[in-house]
Amino acid sequence: MSGMTTGNTSTYEPLSSVYWGGDHLVLLDQRLLPEEIVYLKLYTPEEVWEGIHSMKVRGAPAIGIAAAFGAVLGGMQVEADGREDWLQQVAKTCAYLATSRPTAVNLFWALDRIKLAAEKLAASDLDTAGLNAALLAEAEDIRAEDEDVCRRIGENALPFFRDGMGVLTHCNAGGLATAKYGTALAPMYLAHEQGLNIKVFADETRPVLQGARLTAFELQQAGIDVTLLADNMAAMVMSKGWIQAVIVGTDRVAANGDVANKIGTYGVAVLAKAHGIPFYVACPLSTIDLNTKTGADIPIEERPAEEITEGFGKRTAPQGVKVYNPAFDITPNEYVTAIITEKGVVQAPYEESLKSLFE
Amino acid sequence: MSGMTTGNTSTYEPLSSVYWGGDHLVLLDQRLLPEEIVYLKLYTPEEVWEGIHSMKVRGAPAIGIAAAFGAVLGGMQVEADGREDWLQQVAKTCAYLATSRPTAVNLFWALDRIKLAAEKLAASDLDTAGLNAALLAEAEDIRAEDEDVCRRIGENALPFFRDGMGVLTHCNAGGLATAKYGTALAPMYLAHEQGLNIKVFADETRPVLQGARLTAFELQQAGIDVTLLADNMAAMVMSKGWIQAVIVGTDRVAANGDVANKIGTYGVAVLAKAHGIPFYVACPLSTIDLNTKTGADIPIEERPAEEITEGFGKRTAPQGVKVYNPAFDITPNEYVTAIITEKGVVQAPYEESLKSLFE
Repeated sequence: MSGMTTGNTSTYEPLSSVYWGGDHLVLLDQRLLPEEIVYLKLYTPEEVWEGIHSMKVRGAPAIGIAAAFGAVLGGMQVEADGREDWLQQVAKTCAYLATSRPTAVNLFWALDRIKLAAEKLAASDLDTAGLNAALLAEAEDIRAEDEDVCRRIGENALPFFRDGMGVLTHCNAGGLATAKYGTALAPMYLAHEQGLNIKVFADETRPVLQGARLTAFELQQAGIDVTLLADNMAAMVMSKGWIQAVIVGTDRVAANGDVANKIGTYGVAVLAKAHGIPFYVACPLSTIDLNTKTGADIPIEERPAEEITEGFGKRTAPQGVKVYNPAFDITPNEYVTAIITEKGVVQAPYEESLKSLFE
Repeated sequence: MSGMTTGNTSTYEPLSSVYWGGDHLVLLDQRLLPEEIVYLKLYTPEEVWEGIHSMKVRGAPAIGIAAAFGAVLGGMQVEADGREDWLQQVAKTCAYLATSRPTAVNLFWALDRIKLAAEKLAASDLDTAGLNAALLAEAEDIRAEDEDVCRRIGENALPFFRDGMGVLTHCNAGGLATAKYGTALAPMYLAHEQGLNIKVFADETRPVLQGARLTAFELQQAGIDVTLLADNMAAMVMSKGWIQAVIVGTDRVAANGDVANKIGTYGVAVLAKAHGIPFYVACPLSTIDLNTKTGADIPIEERPAEEITEGFGKRTAPQGVKVYNPAFDITPNEYVTAIITEKGVVQAPYEESLKSLFE
């Protein structure tokens, strides 16, 4: 091990990755972290679509929040008064933003919620300015609720953590992926607040390096003990007995408990099982999609070859080589020890336990 | 999948990564591949030590060959006649070169063989020029034998391959890692010569990307169907049923069949077992070290944090973050379906079968 980090927790306030700027959406450009902290101002649905598509904003809950504000920007483009025109424009924007990425269900969940709110508002007697203000309030609610939900996920996960424990995580399911706290990282922040020492091992998470650039960054900022690994080192670290739990976020949980998450998660789950280590998934209810029967029904986005062949501003593979670059994989439910939500912790059989969360 | 490769096998002659240049050692700088093909001329043992240490030459057999020539360069520095002085100088150079890297046993094997040859030569009546010429012939033998050995490894591995098969490999155990053909890649070259279609999946192999930069490169050059993956995609590709065998090289096999190889190999072995896929290790006898009892006795090199945090000419992790960067891991013998050598294929129980190879 080399390098040391010292942190001061008392003054720590995490970076906000997505929030409303008065008449525009503000996105922290996560592609540039940790070396550059750049906030983007987005004024149009097209800019929001591109921000989601190009992963300037990523993390299932943060994508949902960004899309909600993006739909509000669509409504704000309607100039004349006319609730029907306004509703049509919001609905069109929602449908458009839903094409930005295919896997994270929070995107569709947030857009559905915004569309439903818009339909109710269109039946009122508000003028266009009033409609936009009310729709913005709904998007703000989605954001505020996410912060609260993440804190409750952390509280529900905390009993699985104890002092001195080693925890491995993959990708970034932290404050940057959500309104605040994160999902998988929420219990680490809460444990740290309570003075527990948790040793976090962060997979760098190729190809886009969310673990190196985001998870290591935000935990280090918070003064939490974090060690960065290449993805292929997780097995060795487990075999050394350094890991007592794995915890990850997810982009979609199917009704049977199959979990879609960043590519590499399935491998980590298999390795955890082989080493007798529990594998936890942390997510809000908005990530659970009872309409998706199993993992096989979750569309898996394939991303450009260049993320692997020249992901670092430098070509690292021969020209013209074939590349397979799925952005997500499916972890079958039998590898999932528990799913930790804001409403409680559920275990197998997931078909029943997940359904019970919505009753 | 994106990108396509077309190759012309009939005119293909692989790049030589290590050979004698008349009065110096020639190394293909493997750090710069595939974008730059640069041959280095090394005239001193110090330059050879640095070339091995900094991984300009890598791959257990190639390291052994480079070290053998490096010891010859040491003997060539002796100016006066005097067989005792010469022997002392060669022995000193061997001891020095043995400190360049700790894990690959071929390094020590080749240096021991050179030292033994030097001891015999020092008992002759040769002058210094004659001693150097004879020692050079021994180093040339090591190189030529490796080429022959690799071809025989390929022949012995070939029965495990069949038309249309998907094969996953990790790191680079190809022509660049050896005198020619490679170990794990040798059967792929032979299969290709015989007109079998093998679909190779190459893990990119973080942090130094030997899979992306070297394996994908040399297989593509040879016109073999190769698809590049990030390391964390191997599990998903296995779960899709695309892989019928895993084959890797090794830096040292212990007497009990535990296998040291590039970091990530152990994880691949666990995943292969979980998916019912055979896991083969290909190596020359010079990589088998009966003096090392188990994998626990193999020293594992830790390399600089910067290989992970700024391995691509660009910083990809926060300043000061803790990093764990072991260069190798140990795959316990129970994960190894068979070990394929130039003298034949052995299986568990390895303590007996490995010993029998040397009888």
